[in-house]
Amino acid sequence: MPTYTAPVKDLQFVLHDMLNVSSSDIPGYNELEADFTSAVLEEAGKLTGEVLSPLNVVGDHEGCRLENGVVYTPTGFKDAFEQVKEGGWTGLDMPEEYGGQNMPVVLGTAVGEMFSASNQAFTMYQGLTHGAAAAILAHGTDEQKNKWLPKMVSCEWTGTMNLTEPHCGTDLGLMRTKAEPQDNGTYKISGQKIFISAGDHDMADNIVHLVLAKVPGGPEGIKGVSLFIVPKFLVDDEGNIGARNGVTVGSIEEKMGIHGNSTCVLNYDDAEGYLIGDLNKGMRAMFTMMNEARLGVGMQGLAQAEVAYQNALAYAKDRLQGRAVTGVENPDGLADPLIVHPDIRRSLMDQKSFVEGARAFILWGATMLDESHRKGDKDADGLISLLTPVIKGFLTDEGYDMTVKAQQVYGGHGYIEEWGMSQFTRDARIAMIYEGANGVQALDLVGRKLAADGGKHVMAFFELVKTFCKENGEDEVLKDFVGPLKQASKDLQAAGMYFMQAGMKNPNDALSGSNDFMHLFGHVCLGLMWAQMAKAANAALASGAEDKDFYKTKLTTGRYYMARRLPATGLHLARIQSGGDTVMALAADQF
Amino acid sequence: MPTYTAPVKDLQFVLHDMLNVSSSDIPGYNELEADFTSAVLEEAGKLTGEVLSPLNVVGDHEGCRLENGVVYTPTGFKDAFEQVKEGGWTGLDMPEEYGGQNMPVVLGTAVGEMFSASNQAFTMYQGLTHGAAAAILAHGTDEQKNKWLPKMVSCEWTGTMNLTEPHCGTDLGLMRTKAEPQDNGTYKISGQKIFISAGDHDMADNIVHLVLAKVPGGPEGIKGVSLFIVPKFLVDDEGNIGARNGVTVGSIEEKMGIHGNSTCVLNYDDAEGYLIGDLNKGMRAMFTMMNEARLGVGMQGLAQAEVAYQNALAYAKDRLQGRAVTGVENPDGLADPLIVHPDIRRSLMDQKSFVEGARAFILWGATMLDESHRKGDKDADGLISLLTPVIKGFLTDEGYDMTVKAQQVYGGHGYIEEWGMSQFTRDARIAMIYEGANGVQALDLVGRKLAADGGKHVMAFFELVKTFCKENGEDEVLKDFVGPLKQASKDLQAAGMYFMQAGMKNPNDALSGSNDFMHLFGHVCLGLMWAQMAKAANAALASGAEDKDFYKTKLTTGRYYMARRLPATGLHLARIQSGGDTVMALAADQF
Repeated sequence: MPTYTAPVKDLQFVLHDMLNVSSSDIPGYNELEADFTSAVLEEAGKLTGEVLSPLNVVGDHEGCRLENGVVYTPTGFKDAFEQVKEGGWTGLDMPEEYGGQNMPVVLGTAVGEMFSASNQAFTMYQGLTHGAAAAILAHGTDEQKNKWLPKMVSCEWTGTMNLTEPHCGTDLGLMRTKAEPQDNGTYKISGQKIFISAGDHDMADNIVHLVLAKVPGGPEGIKGVSLFIVPKFLVDDEGNIGARNGVTVGSIEEKMGIHGNSTCVLNYDDAEGYLIGDLNKGMRAMFTMMNEARLGVGMQGLAQAEVAYQNALAYAKDRLQGRAVTGVENPDGLADPLIVHPDIRRSLMDQKSFVEGARAFILWGATMLDESHRKGDKDADGLISLLTPVIKGFLTDEGYDMTVKAQQVYGGHGYIEEWGMSQFTRDARIAMIYEGANGVQALDLVGRKLAADGGKHVMAFFELVKTFCKENGEDEVLKDFVGPLKQASKDLQAAGMYFMQAGMKNPNDALSGSNDFMHLFGHVCLGLMWAQMAKAANAALASGAEDKDFYKTKLTTGRYYMARRLPATGLHLARIQSGGDTVMALAADQF
Repeated sequence: MPTYTAPVKDLQFVLHDMLNVSSSDIPGYNELEADFTSAVLEEAGKLTGEVLSPLNVVGDHEGCRLENGVVYTPTGFKDAFEQVKEGGWTGLDMPEEYGGQNMPVVLGTAVGEMFSASNQAFTMYQGLTHGAAAAILAHGTDEQKNKWLPKMVSCEWTGTMNLTEPHCGTDLGLMRTKAEPQDNGTYKISGQKIFISAGDHDMADNIVHLVLAKVPGGPEGIKGVSLFIVPKFLVDDEGNIGARNGVTVGSIEEKMGIHGNSTCVLNYDDAEGYLIGDLNKGMRAMFTMMNEARLGVGMQGLAQAEVAYQNALAYAKDRLQGRAVTGVENPDGLADPLIVHPDIRRSLMDQKSFVEGARAFILWGATMLDESHRKGDKDADGLISLLTPVIKGFLTDEGYDMTVKAQQVYGGHGYIEEWGMSQFTRDARIAMIYEGANGVQALDLVGRKLAADGGKHVMAFFELVKTFCKENGEDEVLKDFVGPLKQASKDLQAAGMYFMQAGMKNPNDALSGSNDFMHLFGHVCLGLMWAQMAKAANAALASGAEDKDFYKTKLTTGRYYMARRLPATGLHLARIQSGGDTVMALAADQF
């Protein structure tokens, strides 16, 4: 059975050596001293490694079941959920007035990686609750906040997000679910929603569904969509749970992975609902939380890659097969461990350099969210808006590929379910799809974010890279980083330039390269992260830090990324510059 | 539920327009007139599309079950197997004297693609039988051939290959299964074999296991391995089935995919076995068939990509979501079909250009096998030996990626099992692992095949490319093909040169790039295939062939490959030339 050990040291390195969080002027960051974050991470590491991780395989094997309208979660999930609630983990970065601990998002994200890595299907129950609570926090009335948030922050009640319908996912303007206004100010919601993660279960007393629906007579399409709170059980003004509301589980979907999460078809039949935010502004209310939600999904890509890598590494050190080409390395054994073989190392280094770079990228992104929310910094908000589709799309595409590589290290043992490696790929697969499929992320990036605010955010990004290269170009240790980073950034600029010129003439020329642009951008971001981590590691070595080996390994791993992974930018640029002609040439019936 | 339509027209195009099989001087090829192959392919297309394809999902859902030592295949498999046998499909390219039809491998391969695409798990029962029969054909005595082959060619009895043990897969020298010689010339086989595809089932009267084992007292390691025939039921000299032999099913593995195939743990306990081929030369006997077997697995990569693509394409034409960025294309509908979106097309073109290129590559490879076997052509044999790891490794890696892309077209519907897209990725995943994991293919290519016979086969390949470019460089229509092909071939040569120079100093420098080399080589091969197909399509257009649209679409699809896919060679070369330093820098405990 696979195991999971929280990468506390690596997280601490990013938080403190690279991001220097406790020296930041973002409100609340001064509390994030190394000792404090270490204590939090160690504690989260224990819970995730000892309680959640062993339940990951259980969830996969048992799945959820629907019996007489009631959904049952896998063995052990309920007890584990109690432990998570008791530990106060569900409200880590929620406001104190609703029972949270008001920690910055950056710490919540570091902890969140552990939860996702140890048991993604389980963690989604609290993840969806967090997202729904954040929407109520941003758009609810004081009355709504007081009524729903305290129980949601504690996860006594959980939450869901209801967008998709059988005939529409991405294009929500086609939605059919109706909300009929009632005389008392409430609405009657009717319709069918599908793919509702954590849609129903036996771990909470109530479930607060956030549902997108159309009020009849409103504007056509997406402009007529509003957001509603629709609880599973009605709640009176004193907060007591009353009658069952008109929402039932049609079925639980059979999926490729995340079996431990109950993905439901929910049928709404005159269910009582309460408008949240403004009428017909439902999409805006739902999308306010999109940056956080998508950063969270990007993190799942990293998280599954991390746990898969940990297990592949252990197997590569343990499994004896063949001899090193340069001479026997394990003379006492009948064979050498797999890790002596160059192609196994190539795979492990791909994985290692990805997860460490991705971790830095996500935590850096989280600091921007904090800067935006806690300081009202518009530039940080603009930059993280630009980078969000990259974090979501690139990290989940790559994260999935890394789980496939980890599985491959096991040979045939990776294909049978006994070793658990198949689950990591099956669970990681969903992150490329939900919260906006990765093609939609690429479209958002190229079609919307790139040119937003006159392109100032992408210019700010290039400025960051340029400044780093200028300030560190003379440093002998960093020369393996600065040169490749400059080249990659040049590729990114050339791609942006191509889009500006070609996109003017024919938008298909730009959009045909959107997926490649997202990946190109992602590689440049990870290149920048590795350059910054190399600088931090180098500084630590220069200042005589203990554990030199740790910092030297960071430099070596970074060099691998710069030499082997970053040159992908050239390929993506070539594809982008080939334009849309070959992509769009065939009529649909010629395929 | 997914559907499958055999790509008869595309197969005919490769066989006749590109390869001109019926004009070849390979013995037996003159029978392969277009009308004849068309009739065979249409017939196979009916069986696979109407009978095998609908059972694919059934096999996935039900799996195989072991009850009281008996293995039961999924509902409908037994009847379908009878139809396959009655149609004579199991012996298509086997010798007439054992009941086969003595058709060339190239036709067997074209038909094989359909079988694999429609139902991989099902097709493995006959595929393993074919492999085992081929081993007996090549290494058995006349007595053995007469005893076992007729029933295996008809699939009245099926076959298996037993290599892997719990502690060894790739490194078979570590094997522990013993074969004790008996006074009557037979052997008593004892040990445990795992991952035995089609290891036991209820569709045949007997199962002929080919088992690798060591005779005590023989040479150490791989040099002491011999190959044995071990039937499930003993067979007397008249061919009558007798007592049960000492082989039992320990369990059926739970796997990520190919659930319809019974992957067994087989326990041998003093089972009666018969030496096949020479004592201690078991690996040689097993590996004689390796080129065919690996070509067959490469074909599975293509086959799963093909069927996944077919369904993704249908969905992209049918599913309405969003509007084309250049203006409404489906004014009568609430939205446009997915296929209008550039990123969906990019994905579909990736898939289409891969499957059509891969099909040409495999069928070309099959002609070399025929040339080697039927004409005794050593050059053809050398070239296909060189290309076999490329066919197996590149086409299964890429084929898997294509199934993931096809699944992605469906969004959330690709993740639930209801639509069947998840099965294609789960089934395709195994082809990267079995018959030698792809890392082993890359090692075989770089460490063995590249320098074999003084490097003459890779030189012959370069010569092929050069000749094509020289002969067609002035053709206006082919200029989009010749230029990119030249560049890609140059990258491949540079990589080969690097290996020669670096590998001399330190083999790790070469082996660190083995995976990239395999992919680089694969792209050049597909580039060559597209250039040849473009030439053939162009010739057909020039000669006034009917269905101009078909040939024009070939040219367009080929241009896409050359512009968008082939430039990957530059990235692979850059990685290769970065050498082994960053790959090998970390000590195992620094990971």
